[in-house]
Amino acid sequence: MAINVTLPVARTTPKGAKSLRTGNPWLYRTELAAPPDVTGPGAVVLVVDSQGNPIGQALYARRSPLALRLLTRKPPREQPVNDLFFRRRLEAALARRSSLSGRDGLRLVHGESDQLPGLFVDRYGKGLTLQTLSEGMDARKESLAKMLVELTGATHVVCRDDASGRDFEGLPRESRFLHGEGESRFTYHEGDNRFEVDLLGDMKTGAFLDQVDNHLRAGELARGEALDLFSYHGGFALALARNSESVLAVEQDEKAAARIGANARANNRTNVSVENANAFDVLKRFDSQSRRFDTIVLDPPGLAKRREGLETALRAYHELNLRALRCLKPDGLLVTCSCSGKLDRAGFEEMLLGAAADAKRPIQILERRGAGLDHPVLGGLQETEYLKALYVRAL
Amino acid sequence: MAINVTLPVARTTPKGAKSLRTGNPWLYRTELAAPPDVTGPGAVVLVVDSQGNPIGQALYARRSPLALRLLTRKPPREQPVNDLFFRRRLEAALARRSSLSGRDGLRLVHGESDQLPGLFVDRYGKGLTLQTLSEGMDARKESLAKMLVELTGATHVVCRDDASGRDFEGLPRESRFLHGEGESRFTYHEGDNRFEVDLLGDMKTGAFLDQVDNHLRAGELARGEALDLFSYHGGFALALARNSESVLAVEQDEKAAARIGANARANNRTNVSVENANAFDVLKRFDSQSRRFDTIVLDPPGLAKRREGLETALRAYHELNLRALRCLKPDGLLVTCSCSGKLDRAGFEEMLLGAAADAKRPIQILERRGAGLDHPVLGGLQETEYLKALYVRAL
Repeated sequence: MAINVTLPVARTTPKGAKSLRTGNPWLYRTELAAPPDVTGPGAVVLVVDSQGNPIGQALYARRSPLALRLLTRKPPREQPVNDLFFRRRLEAALARRSSLSGRDGLRLVHGESDQLPGLFVDRYGKGLTLQTLSEGMDARKESLAKMLVELTGATHVVCRDDASGRDFEGLPRESRFLHGEGESRFTYHEGDNRFEVDLLGDMKTGAFLDQVDNHLRAGELARGEALDLFSYHGGFALALARNSESVLAVEQDEKAAARIGANARANNRTNVSVENANAFDVLKRFDSQSRRFDTIVLDPPGLAKRREGLETALRAYHELNLRALRCLKPDGLLVTCSCSGKLDRAGFEEMLLGAAADAKRPIQILERRGAGLDHPVLGGLQETEYLKALYVRAL
Repeated sequence: MAINVTLPVARTTPKGAKSLRTGNPWLYRTELAAPPDVTGPGAVVLVVDSQGNPIGQALYARRSPLALRLLTRKPPREQPVNDLFFRRRLEAALARRSSLSGRDGLRLVHGESDQLPGLFVDRYGKGLTLQTLSEGMDARKESLAKMLVELTGATHVVCRDDASGRDFEGLPRESRFLHGEGESRFTYHEGDNRFEVDLLGDMKTGAFLDQVDNHLRAGELARGEALDLFSYHGGFALALARNSESVLAVEQDEKAAARIGANARANNRTNVSVENANAFDVLKRFDSQSRRFDTIVLDPPGLAKRREGLETALRAYHELNLRALRCLKPDGLLVTCSCSGKLDRAGFEEMLLGAAADAKRPIQILERRGAGLDHPVLGGLQETEYLKALYVRAL
């Protein structure tokens, strides 16, 4: 079969071809029978099976174990992968978020789930943060930033390509302005709370936008005396403050703890107090003191980064959840989260049931949530799912 | 060990004792080493392990395979199971729903999850529907109805003890007034839509209150041309009508289809049309005609009633979901539900991913939901969970 295009060709193994054809957009180098003849970064290649039949077009990564990320199943003559192609994909990602038009802090592009593999874009008011986790997107980030400015009216775009995922891809770590300069501090809102972020200096891309919907939902359901553990900048704490009598926000990082206080003052949340301490220690103390709360939020950092660390992580999750359940008044609400991609929903829920049994507290499971609508999971690609939030009432 | 009470004693097997002690409130007759000496209906018994150590107090059922339903782990001298006990449990169930005080249609008591095993109470305005699925609750339903009238101010209470679950319990089927009479038609609201129900004549307890939150959420996300399959009285259809250009509601039952029309007119939803037809046939026709929608809701009746019927049911779910995905425009929204308790979340999601692969449509999983806050799942008792709703966007 003659292929009338000039794209480099990547030939897959039969197993690789089958995987790509059943919906997975990723192909690891181990399933590459013949790599494409590519020298520069970010090449688009034609993917074919072992018989030479076309499967689609993909971004090729020269150094990553994840060699191919499928962009389209259409042939080049039908859908050329050029600037217009990426612009249309960006427009589609923005259009999918039209129901969130009232929000000024949200994810605009969620990588594979938006068919823009390895590209993540967050909006904070007039500022955008861009992350590239594929060589193909990394090579195009200046041009993507330009398109995003045109499509969104953003005044500043920074890249936050300083996460560990870049090492896996064989890409250097960097963070810098891609558009505009001088100003990296922006404000955005979560419900009626206003937050300030430093797009170049704060964690992740500035804030944890994947948790915004959970902040708001927990805020709706919270009441009485509330405790927010691993509070970071107070996203949960300030949301809880709305319906709770009091909120104690616990954060180990001194700078972050100071930020919670500043955010609470700026939003006139006078019922929020802050303790700069380790959440494990605080829970242990409250447990031994029989201190009880009506509402507790547990939002630890990813405790299971690697699969081999899963057992250790599960022990830590169990301890946190057991103590939190013990520190709840009858019918108290626990919002417990895990952002460890290596711990799946079933495993997280099993851990919680074990903690409830050990705490001798029957629990009602009220809601199971994940990241918000702006962080969709791609069906069949488990790696696009990581955030789990269980809302339970301890009887 | 001497037990200083007059309750009949039920002795469990070691396996049964272990199960009860790790949080499961149910004990099947097979795990009963010595049944209690009980003649009348609805006895409360003291449950002990094979050594005679107390485990708690339970409702005993003389004919059901499900012999014991635990009420409390406390001993009779500490927590006597009398009218006051049940009244306190009812009050707690009502208090848990205080955040839903703006709703006039909701479940007030959700059986095991509210520690009132086998008792289900739904509110429709000033009318209550009561269902008892345990001999213990059945024997107490007149007195429970009286308490509920005092606690809620309801004018009428009916029992809808006409479901197949009663056969399993060895209880007769009946439906009748327990309080008030003459009037079984009530109205309630789902968001700003008003619905009329006949508490004695309509399906389930009058309506499908477990789906109210999904009706409202689907209504928020819907747009364009919408299709609502298995519409019953139009709960989804009328909610979709708010943000959609048009809604086609499909319902096979002639009387129910007429009710959709009446409900749409009563709520001035002029963009809702009704087709009295079989949903499988309609989807097949639309698929072959390449008719495309922006939003589709699939809410079939339980297709897997028994585990042995699971394979057949999965084929039916697959056909429905495959065709629905094919009938969606690019980026269209599918809200797909299953109320089959025998099909678990993982199985339902696997079915959907298979349908998406067959339809060659990548999907974004936006949200995974279940029944609303008023229908909580009891952690560890899988049987209290049945409703699953997946919100997906087909790219």
